Amino acid sequence: MRAFDLHAQTLLQTIFSARRDVRGKHFQSTPIEDEVLRKILEAAISAPSVGFSQPWKFIIVQNVAKREAIYNEFVSENAKAAKLFDETPLYASLKLEGIKESPLNIAVLYQKPTKTVLGQTTQKKMGEYSVVCAIQNLWLMARAHNIGVGWVSILRPKKVKKILGIGDEYKLIGYLTMGYVSEFLDEPELLKLGWEEKKTLNEVVEWV
Amino acid sequence: MRAFDLHAQTLLQTIFSARRDVRGKHFQSTPIEDEVLRKILEAAISAPSVGFSQPWKFIIVQNVAKREAIYNEFVSENAKAAKLFDETPLYASLKLEGIKESPLNIAVLYQKPTKTVLGQTTQKKMGEYSVVCAIQNLWLMARAHNIGVGWVSILRPKKVKKILGIGDEYKLIGYLTMGYVSEFLDEPELLKLGWEEKKTLNEVVEWV
Repeated sequence: MRAFDLHAQTLLQTIFSARRDVRGKHFQSTPIEDEVLRKILEAAISAPSVGFSQPWKFIIVQNVAKREAIYNEFVSENAKAAKLFDETPLYASLKLEGIKESPLNIAVLYQKPTKTVLGQTTQKKMGEYSVVCAIQNLWLMARAHNIGVGWVSILRPKKVKKILGIGDEYKLIGYLTMGYVSEFLDEPELLKLGWEEKKTLNEVVEWV
Repeated sequence: MRAFDLHAQTLLQTIFSARRDVRGKHFQSTPIEDEVLRKILEAAISAPSVGFSQPWKFIIVQNVAKREAIYNEFVSENAKAAKLFDETPLYASLKLEGIKESPLNIAVLYQKPTKTVLGQTTQKKMGEYSVVCAIQNLWLMARAHNIGVGWVSILRPKKVKKILGIGDEYKLIGYLTMGYVSEFLDEPELLKLGWEEKKTLNEVVEWV
């Protein structure tokens, strides 16, 4: 069996630490090579899944009109969100997506099961969580290829599904924007801006 | 900015591919060193989180009586699950957890927000998904330390929370078992057993 060493551990942590949520101002229009995209998607489907159900589906969105419609949905939802932050003027100045600037968007879906799934009998959410693990693998492998990913969450899943013509057997888990970047920030933008502080291990670990 | 190369991409995919969901029969009782556990948890909190909210909490469960109670909860829930698979005798022969065999259990929680979270205004599940990203990072870094992780999902979250004395402000996302192993299987056990087949990229990727 494969044994990893300090070099692997250090490199893995370096990739974790260098991964960023990339927004529009940092994306470049350079297309992602098919072979690179394939490797990134292979990484995604190497993720764990409950009962080995692999309940994921990846819709690569190239169609410009569909992306425009999804962008408009973002603008509408973000206007509502901005009202919730009306005491924090910083919010309105943030660029929170890169739907049109990035060369590729990917809608990541959860396919609802048509039979009983091993391990999903008590916690129904396990299938969705498997898809999130695939997204995290995708995000990390993209970073290892020096490609940025932004997860756009200010979108109503039902609207996105309608725009993309996705059926009821699927649930939208993540809408990702992806492309080469001008820069990966050295820290999360919201940390740099003082929006939130980084939590320490002491704050988030307890022993019982 | 840090640029990664083919070596990093290949090593990352090797870690993805070597990661397994480890069950009781493969765990060894060797304790995990504090320094190694710390590195694995640091990897977890390097995960992305919506609005940099870092809504995660890790409860390291060492108490034997609590682990016994969680094991009993598994046995009870798995008896119910087995009935759903009564036409598949293989189910009853599967060892689906390693709660008592592993030297460490970790309950991974989502802390519900007390203020509006940037990016979580439209999709409320984004906070839980952030915690899942942390679990995936933890899982990968554990593997890079040659430590196995099993995600035990046949447990009622409310029962686990009650056993561990966890308050209403938290939601259980994952209950993990962790330890050094006698073996990492070369493929997922459910693939080896023919329970499910591996899906190809062609089956799970569409272009629009």
